[in-house]
Amino acid sequence: MRQDSTILNFQTRGRGLLEITREIVGWADGQAMDAGLLTLFCRHTSASLLIQENAARAVRTDLEAFFDRIAPEDPQAYEHDDEGPDDMPAHLRTALTGVQLSIPLISGRLALGTWQGIYLFEHRRRPHRREVAVHLMGE
Amino acid sequence: MRQDSTILNFQTRGRGLLEITREIVGWADGQAMDAGLLTLFCRHTSASLLIQENAARAVRTDLEAFFDRIAPEDPQAYEHDDEGPDDMPAHLRTALTGVQLSIPLISGRLALGTWQGIYLFEHRRRPHRREVAVHLMGE
Amino acid sequence: MRQDSTILNFQTRGRGLLEITREIVGWADGQAMDAGLLTLFCRHTSASLLIQENAARAVRTDLEAFFDRIAPEDPQAYEHDDEGPDDMPAHLRTALTGVQLSIPLISGRLALGTWQGIYLFEHRRRPHRREVAVHLMGE
Repeated sequence: MRQDSTILNFQTRGRGLLEITREIVGWADGQAMDAGLLTLFCRHTSASLLIQENAARAVRTDLEAFFDRIAPEDPQAYEHDDEGPDDMPAHLRTALTGVQLSIPLISGRLALGTWQGIYLFEHRRRPHRREVAVHLMGE
Repeated sequence: MRQDSTILNFQTRGRGLLEITREIVGWADGQAMDAGLLTLFCRHTSASLLIQENAARAVRTDLEAFFDRIAPEDPQAYEHDDEGPDDMPAHLRTALTGVQLSIPLISGRLALGTWQGIYLFEHRRRPHRREVAVHLMGE
Repeated sequence: MRQDSTILNFQTRGRGLLEITREIVGWADGQAMDAGLLTLFCRHTSASLLIQENAARAVRTDLEAFFDRIAPEDPQAYEHDDEGPDDMPAHLRTALTGVQLSIPLISGRLALGTWQGIYLFEHRRRPHRREVAVHLMGE
């Protein structure tokens, strides 16, 4: 049994879902393991990690619109706005979706379903550079 | 240290919580490990995994009703409806609850609390066959 | 490769976020590993685990207020109230935020971002004693 880890950097394009499946699968493949457990950890409090459908583009736009509705920008609603009106909603959306994912590696492949993609969910209006810690343990 | 994994299949009965604690514990017990980490990963984007109370039935009906309210079926609200009005709400509820759980194995038992059960949360109206990847690493 | 685990006990002060970063980091440091995977698992259905900003206090009060709004106490809304009006909202907030977190250990440190703290989120009105299973696997 062995392990390896790294920090991957992603440049987001502002609010919305950025697919990172290829980068994650590429790094995992590079470890040349047959079985194990991959863990992703987003090192921020205003961006999160999500498994979502990788086919229909409308799923992503609907999903982004949904989070705009349930955790809206609203200057009246929050005390905290140190970095602007998108600051506190970003924390809330991160709390609702989470910053960590673990995916088993089985027979040399991540156990993602056919329609599952891995997404980095940027919750701030502006583009940010985001760090995702990636860890794989197995053999 | 060693590991094992499998894909377990579950037939859901349509929208709602399906308890899978017994199947998960049964598979873990079969690995005959004393300590380790169990990871469950649901390979779908319209069903999720949840730890919830395993005693009062009303908790489950209230929980199902709550998700119907915060991510409702509403043809006006979503662009994506390739598979019907329950398609997009299913993706949203999956995003809110998550597709992965890891549970430590301590002294030969999963560290579940007394009132915790493991549930597969089906978000589509109709029954589906769902795959859950299960991975255990330990000794 | 080796592993260790324990159950840490925390006394909450009633509803709200209790930072537990120091206790978790302290236990992990005590294992004297250089690389690995730490997993936290909250053994309850009315308290959860959350990574959130550890700087501005207002983030926490806004976050607590947000969950009061989206999963409110409301005797009309729920059938289940065995332990009072805060019982069912506590289960809902636990479902939305989750009971498990895994964090890679890289170069002898948990891969938490600069502004990330680990919080135990008490969802009941009254103080409770909460158990968090902690597991570390690595070398």
